[in-house]
Amino acid sequence: MIPKLSHYRKIIGSEAVEQIREKAEPLEGKHVVHVNATSTGGGVAEILNNLVFLMNDVGITTGWRVILGSHSFFKVTKGMHNALQGNKWRMTNSRKRIYEEYCERNSMINHLGEHDLVVIHDPQPLGMIKGYEKKAKWIWRCHIDISSPNMDVLGYLLPLIKKYDGVIISSRKFRIKYLRRPQSIIPPSIDPLSQKNKKLDLAKAKRLLSKKGIDPDKPILCQISRFDPWKDHLGVVRMYQKIKEKHDCQLVLMGDMAGDDPQGPIIYHQIKQKSEELKDLTIITEKNDLLVNALQTASACVFQNSIKEGFALTVSEALWKNTPVLGTDVGGIPLQIKNNKTGFIIRNRKDGVKKALMILENEKMRERLGRAGHEHVKKNFLITSHLYNYINLFNRFLKPD
Amino acid sequence: MIPKLSHYRKIIGSEAVEQIREKAEPLEGKHVVHVNATSTGGGVAEILNNLVFLMNDVGITTGWRVILGSHSFFKVTKGMHNALQGNKWRMTNSRKRIYEEYCERNSMINHLGEHDLVVIHDPQPLGMIKGYEKKAKWIWRCHIDISSPNMDVLGYLLPLIKKYDGVIISSRKFRIKYLRRPQSIIPPSIDPLSQKNKKLDLAKAKRLLSKKGIDPDKPILCQISRFDPWKDHLGVVRMYQKIKEKHDCQLVLMGDMAGDDPQGPIIYHQIKQKSEELKDLTIITEKNDLLVNALQTASACVFQNSIKEGFALTVSEALWKNTPVLGTDVGGIPLQIKNNKTGFIIRNRKDGVKKALMILENEKMRERLGRAGHEHVKKNFLITSHLYNYINLFNRFLKPD
Repeated sequence: MIPKLSHYRKIIGSEAVEQIREKAEPLEGKHVVHVNATSTGGGVAEILNNLVFLMNDVGITTGWRVILGSHSFFKVTKGMHNALQGNKWRMTNSRKRIYEEYCERNSMINHLGEHDLVVIHDPQPLGMIKGYEKKAKWIWRCHIDISSPNMDVLGYLLPLIKKYDGVIISSRKFRIKYLRRPQSIIPPSIDPLSQKNKKLDLAKAKRLLSKKGIDPDKPILCQISRFDPWKDHLGVVRMYQKIKEKHDCQLVLMGDMAGDDPQGPIIYHQIKQKSEELKDLTIITEKNDLLVNALQTASACVFQNSIKEGFALTVSEALWKNTPVLGTDVGGIPLQIKNNKTGFIIRNRKDGVKKALMILENEKMRERLGRAGHEHVKKNFLITSHLYNYINLFNRFLKPD
Repeated sequence: MIPKLSHYRKIIGSEAVEQIREKAEPLEGKHVVHVNATSTGGGVAEILNNLVFLMNDVGITTGWRVILGSHSFFKVTKGMHNALQGNKWRMTNSRKRIYEEYCERNSMINHLGEHDLVVIHDPQPLGMIKGYEKKAKWIWRCHIDISSPNMDVLGYLLPLIKKYDGVIISSRKFRIKYLRRPQSIIPPSIDPLSQKNKKLDLAKAKRLLSKKGIDPDKPILCQISRFDPWKDHLGVVRMYQKIKEKHDCQLVLMGDMAGDDPQGPIIYHQIKQKSEELKDLTIITEKNDLLVNALQTASACVFQNSIKEGFALTVSEALWKNTPVLGTDVGGIPLQIKNNKTGFIIRNRKDGVKKALMILENEKMRERLGRAGHEHVKKNFLITSHLYNYINLFNRFLKPD
């Protein structure tokens, strides 16, 4: 079903819906276009897949373009992405040539010049702006935390970023250094009506889980994350061992493996070996949104034990289901986990074990954290707030001079 | 490097270049847009990746949009694709719903209404036309052979196809039944300047091959095809066994495996087992255009032993390098292999063995076939002819009334 704002009335109420519509009125008939690097896979595509249709629904003529690129182009932009998060890497001349050629190609085949406002997402299409005589307002929407960047790459990108009329970041903490102009803050969001987040009856969630060999009546701890080294799955397994000594429970690790990451299969293999010596550990590599929903719904608490993170919307997904989250103090996690309010920020494994046991042994606490988590997400991280924030920003950029 | 028509001057000559430019003149400033399902992978994307830029270079403002779709949408369109080639499959109501929802989504976010001419490629975006008030001319470019279709699917699509102003097919043989209007014929093409087809010195080709463990001084037979059941790799292996008894040579099978085809790994495994008992059989699964080029350049002859085929541009790729091709009488193969002129159409394995031996043992014949093959491709299947054919068609559709 194509998303419409009215579908969200039952979640955010009629008043909030009307408030959004009203705010969108001056934008009626304006032409806006989003440009990003992929239509499936990844948080940005997941958000745009609904947001773009909601924008159309409130009267803004909103397009979405996905850029083209060769294998070598996407290898370069992946290097840029990791470098912007702090990795060692050099923007060599040959990498610049590849990057610039594909920006130029994309400028040629996407006639963005006739729009009122162009929103470019992340570094891959950033350089396209050079290919246009600037008539529209251009906004760069940066989804990653580039507050401690590799300066070789940021230095290369800054002159491009400065061509934009505005920059959006996800959190005050992500502020881009060396960029003097104001940066607007709009957090990302989850869609409460998607397969992954729609209301799921606990009994149904348990049925779905038991089909996967999970005992629905033993308390569940879980982590839902791609099998990559930055998610520290083995740390979660070690905490689980200690927790299980004190309180009977089970662990579910669910996530897919990035096809392009050679470390994925290694980590998966390590955990798989562990799982043979451990009891009640289930590993799920299937891509299945409804199962993620069931797992977040039925878990006693959810781990997000990342070493490095973007925003980690998986935290909001769990909180939305009234499930407390134990997470590390990185990326966007502390914006979602308010310590001892919606879950706990864990300082180390020992602390993680202690906090998990507190939740397992205190149903009242679990309920209190869960309720507060749901409210926190409702107030800050729903797609409807996201829509409102964008509309607000568009109004600012498109107001008559 | 972004393709420009002038780059092709050394291949097709100044006169042909000027002829294209002249033909394009009345289209100067017209807005054309191509829409297809993927920007990488597959022949259509490979062609558009150059053709779209050449169209811009001759003055036609040409865009390219890649549609969005969910996993379930692409599962449905894959089913439709196979059914249009004759597979048993039903266009159920739930499949129709999925297909139509994504066509509608794509219509909403791609504002094609303002173009002069829209070219929709293949069945995936076919239904988008319903989402527009038709002002532009719309052309459906069908790349697959749907001359013996599953009528359940064609019956569903016909009312959509009839909304178009024109239909392009790749060959007279591919004519769509039950569609009364004229169908324009434009064959697909190869790009003589790409990594895969650019002129490669034989000595350099041999060096590249010897790095992969191929003996550059023993005659090479090869097949370059995805490991899927329709390419009959095992048939090629059996012919090779017989050929090798009479004339010392080697076989190279190169191709990737479609991630979504469960039969790929099974076939690969069968051949791998065979290769242990056979001598001089090399299997390459690497994706490497320059290596394909080297292999086609250095081979004595190339097999295309398909049971079912689209156009099979691999045939033209080999012919372009003066290498004769032995292929089956399916899909677009006989348009490229003129029997005993550019290679041989093989009727069965015994025939294939006989023809391969003729070529191996008669260098003069090999040269004659090779020269004719190169000329045949030059005349019919180069991207410059493709460009010319499109321009011709655009002129027809965009002429002042």
